[in-house]
Amino acid sequence: MTVLVMNSLAAPMVQSRLPDWVKPRFFSTTQELLELAPDAEIGWMDLNEKDAMVTAIASATRLKWLNSIYAGVDGMPLDMLRERGVVLTNGVGINAITIAEYVVMALLTVAKGYREVVRAQDRHEWLLDAPGKVELAGSRALIIGYGAIGQGVERRLAGFDVDVVKVRRSAGEGALGPEEWRGQLGAFDWVILAVPATAETDAMIGAAELAAMKPTATLINVARGSVIDQDALVAALTAGRPGSAFLDVTTPEPLPADHPLWSLPNAHVSMHLSGRSQTRMFERSVTRFLENLDRFGRGEPLQPQVDLSLGY
Amino acid sequence: MTVLVMNSLAAPMVQSRLPDWVKPRFFSTTQELLELAPDAEIGWMDLNEKDAMVTAIASATRLKWLNSIYAGVDGMPLDMLRERGVVLTNGVGINAITIAEYVVMALLTVAKGYREVVRAQDRHEWLLDAPGKVELAGSRALIIGYGAIGQGVERRLAGFDVDVVKVRRSAGEGALGPEEWRGQLGAFDWVILAVPATAETDAMIGAAELAAMKPTATLINVARGSVIDQDALVAALTAGRPGSAFLDVTTPEPLPADHPLWSLPNAHVSMHLSGRSQTRMFERSVTRFLENLDRFGRGEPLQPQVDLSLGY
Repeated sequence: MTVLVMNSLAAPMVQSRLPDWVKPRFFSTTQELLELAPDAEIGWMDLNEKDAMVTAIASATRLKWLNSIYAGVDGMPLDMLRERGVVLTNGVGINAITIAEYVVMALLTVAKGYREVVRAQDRHEWLLDAPGKVELAGSRALIIGYGAIGQGVERRLAGFDVDVVKVRRSAGEGALGPEEWRGQLGAFDWVILAVPATAETDAMIGAAELAAMKPTATLINVARGSVIDQDALVAALTAGRPGSAFLDVTTPEPLPADHPLWSLPNAHVSMHLSGRSQTRMFERSVTRFLENLDRFGRGEPLQPQVDLSLGY
Repeated sequence: MTVLVMNSLAAPMVQSRLPDWVKPRFFSTTQELLELAPDAEIGWMDLNEKDAMVTAIASATRLKWLNSIYAGVDGMPLDMLRERGVVLTNGVGINAITIAEYVVMALLTVAKGYREVVRAQDRHEWLLDAPGKVELAGSRALIIGYGAIGQGVERRLAGFDVDVVKVRRSAGEGALGPEEWRGQLGAFDWVILAVPATAETDAMIGAAELAAMKPTATLINVARGSVIDQDALVAALTAGRPGSAFLDVTTPEPLPADHPLWSLPNAHVSMHLSGRSQTRMFERSVTRFLENLDRFGRGEPLQPQVDLSLGY
């Protein structure tokens, strides 16, 4: 029997579907996880408290396979997992549909000034002119990060006649390489961040990149807050360049109530809700996890595996 | 010389580009229009005050061609124009891009509960869960009216994996005829109204149609307020079926401050801003008008002409 330690919330969805060689142990609290972790050979140990999660994983010395529901695994002890030879599977792609939809919503709501329409309705005021007059048609978008989310955004924007250029590790047709995009930032109306959070992407958008953007451009971040130098962003938005930012992610999360991003008129804060704006995340994660359990039982490679050196 | 009567707002864009056989007379006020109208052979006489506009047109007994910036010509005296043999050109298609973009924004903002995100940011409150969890992917949309706007919506929704069915005068592949759609209303998550306002479409969505919709469906109206029986809609939304409505148009406009649509939690009112959410409306209209002036000078048919019997 192989010991599986996972959250009891998922128990109703998995219990009847587990292979007979699996011995499940469910945790409901962080304390229970910490007690069960040393026995875990397979673990699904996502916690909002990152420190406690790392402690639990550190004590899981028998662990062979760790799973996460999330695409971003920047809170995981990747070096420790690599040293111990633990395989890490993540939720890459699970949220890609809803996040890609959210990104297009971000472009449209900024373009049309829709936030002002909401506020006007709340005042029962019939606006006589449009608070935003940008058409997506004919605009240009740079998508930095060309994984499942970036590809999903590209496909959706095609129908809007947006000219999309993407940044990926290898340049090519319609794509810029990692060293090329900075010099062309000023050519885009929309700069969309969909990269994993790694050492390489940390603060990749700083004062220089913000200053290089079009004054009318919008920066959209569905990656991680750490990808932007947030102090530089607050200064840039205060100065009005770039024109606006739509931030699904911030540093820290939750954003403190007195943080300037809340009230800057050109900052849109969507509270890391993009991936949550769906009902099928758990269903999709559980389905993927059970498929991987079967592969594990047959000794086949799990997928998708995180590259523990690259961090995604 | 042919006398052209038009609004002085457009003078800077047209004056230097008029053919030499045109004698322009510009009006700045309704009173000036009423004085100039009897001399007009060509007229561009849009007024917000529909009664005064009809009075001006009635007095324009020399009129051969009337132009409007708007796609919807339901405020025009169509019977009078037909009896007098006046050609009417309109703005059909001028606003189609921005309105189609607005419709997709409507779907996305309703799907993700984005209005609650705006309100939460205004309170500096970090929402922990998404106020809307609908994915467009896999949903079904019925587009009633398959002109430039309907076609534009269809093309944009394709990238979102929305299954689109349209209603047009002649049924066919992927299209329902005018008598077929009512029986299938319950199969759609989104019902999008993009028809012209005519006798045929007046109150086409009434209590029976609303009751036939899915309880979770959203009704989106970018046509005219008159296309919906609005009292029936208020009753239906109050009862929670359909789930919500996104109304770019209402009866009347502006909507009075005490109208129940403002504060129904499932009514989204966007104040007829969809077509105005662009900067190129006048430029596009003037370009089209000047092209038609050349056609008029050469004795060629103007386009697009409104069918004065059908009303669009």
